[in-house]
Amino acid sequence: MTVTAGAELADRVRAGEALACARLMSLAERGDARFPEQYGRFHAELGRARRFGITGPPGAGKSTLVERLALHWRAAGHTLGIVAVDPTSPFSGGALLGDRVRMSRLALDAGVFIRSMATRGLFGGLARASDDVVDVLDLYGRDTILIETVGVGQSEVDIARSADLTVVVLHPGGGDTIQAMKAGLMEVADVYLVNKADMPGLDRLVAQLTDILDLRDIPHELRPPILTSVAATGQGVAALAAELDRMHAERAASGVLAARRAANLEKRVRRLVDGRLRQDIWETFGLAGTLARRLSQPGPHSAWGLAGEILDIYRNARPSESDA
Amino acid sequence: MTVTAGAELADRVRAGEALACARLMSLAERGDARFPEQYGRFHAELGRARRFGITGPPGAGKSTLVERLALHWRAAGHTLGIVAVDPTSPFSGGALLGDRVRMSRLALDAGVFIRSMATRGLFGGLARASDDVVDVLDLYGRDTILIETVGVGQSEVDIARSADLTVVVLHPGGGDTIQAMKAGLMEVADVYLVNKADMPGLDRLVAQLTDILDLRDIPHELRPPILTSVAATGQGVAALAAELDRMHAERAASGVLAARRAANLEKRVRRLVDGRLRQDIWETFGLAGTLARRLSQPGPHSAWGLAGEILDIYRNARPSESDA
Repeated sequence: MTVTAGAELADRVRAGEALACARLMSLAERGDARFPEQYGRFHAELGRARRFGITGPPGAGKSTLVERLALHWRAAGHTLGIVAVDPTSPFSGGALLGDRVRMSRLALDAGVFIRSMATRGLFGGLARASDDVVDVLDLYGRDTILIETVGVGQSEVDIARSADLTVVVLHPGGGDTIQAMKAGLMEVADVYLVNKADMPGLDRLVAQLTDILDLRDIPHELRPPILTSVAATGQGVAALAAELDRMHAERAASGVLAARRAANLEKRVRRLVDGRLRQDIWETFGLAGTLARRLSQPGPHSAWGLAGEILDIYRNARPSESDA
Repeated sequence: MTVTAGAELADRVRAGEALACARLMSLAERGDARFPEQYGRFHAELGRARRFGITGPPGAGKSTLVERLALHWRAAGHTLGIVAVDPTSPFSGGALLGDRVRMSRLALDAGVFIRSMATRGLFGGLARASDDVVDVLDLYGRDTILIETVGVGQSEVDIARSADLTVVVLHPGGGDTIQAMKAGLMEVADVYLVNKADMPGLDRLVAQLTDILDLRDIPHELRPPILTSVAATGQGVAALAAELDRMHAERAASGVLAARRAANLEKRVRRLVDGRLRQDIWETFGLAGTLARRLSQPGPHSAWGLAGEILDIYRNARPSESDA
């Protein structure tokens, strides 16, 4: 479907133009001022897509799982969007590793739109950019969106949490559970998936997860199920998809989903404001240059003292600036 | 050594009081206003300690290495500070795993001060807090400080880079190199250490690292050496310590160290300013409450639109606020 060349980018994305979709995502990623402008044209339509976060430690098999889930849902008639913000994922890092080939079954299917996000050079941080990119996929009409992140850094965990439902993928062996607990991953799980379930240690890991859940005071209807899979062979993938279908529908009906989305929106606005303030002080007000000049003077320099000086300049500059 | 009870906290830390040291670190971690006040009393004395960052993917053996390095340098007459900001480290997560016992040889030695940092609940982020905590160890008189982080998230990599020299620890097998490259770890290395050198795949990993270095255009004197170790048995640890001693002294003499510290200071001031601005807008100006009220009104809500509203309120409130 192609809309007239003069049409707004958002209208062309809504009409299903893949190139327009990629272009609007690029504007979002680099913080171009045209993105919020376009966003104003479609924000009221958002929220139709189901958003699933897939996270877990490196080596748990997240990318293979994402591929299998996408194939499964495609066969069931869904349209898919995949956002890969995992620096170790073949989706995002394929050019380096050469294993993007593995994904060719998906890449040739127009019903699957894959967006790899570099983890550096993004304006305003990963989480800000991935929120916007997922919204573009929603506008593009994808009914199911998978967001893959490696669950170690804080911003990666934030992204996983910004979905409607979050799947934490673990695998037997390697002290996964403990590491995931320490990284704060356990609290974000709506579903635990023990992948590589054909490896030794499956029963022990499932027992550990069960113990951890028993210790927490979770209402029965919100207790995360523990599923198993062997993503490499596809075993368990249909059951996971069915469970996600069921949970999403149930939470949409009960109001749990609306509450989660409201909480996510609040966090997102805070991220946006923080990013804009940073841009304001360092770029618009040119205080990056002021700091560099100040540091080129003889020391010793006080980190906290310099921060106070910069903040004072910013605060005092504000009034006259807003008069202009 | 104990100073009179009425003395300033900074003076008591300088005099070697361990409890004062821990207390000043706690003030730093939770963003207490008394920290910058104390900081003003000692910032001009900082920079005497050597600061080494130890980072790498989970499972590379960083904690064991840190323990061995600390024991080695203690035997050579140094005093040590260890800051563990690795959520998977027994130093910081010991209470969960029960393996803090392993560190008892160090914990009983007054010449080694260990500080574990939780990765959540820190005011202003991990990197801001770890900078301040390391400075306290410097004031406390430790001549060698080890900062252990897991090299996956961006803020963890930032912390590793904030040291004088950064050791990236890898181990054979498991696609380490590729993952480390993708996570941006390779660029921060001043030294590569291939740990678990008794495992199969050592030669291949060393060859990969050599190839990667050959491809980059690094001046000869700054090319990161590739060392090997088996931290579990102590093999290679003395050689690593000797290399770090040599490199640090050489860079201190050549001016490379001073340039690195100046660049780190600039990044640190930016982090501090960003953190203070966030506190300003959400807490001091109470815009967290404003946002929550705004979101409780009927939608649809626009994330970008709300961010713009909040920023406008902040900007317009500024002048009258600074008149007060």
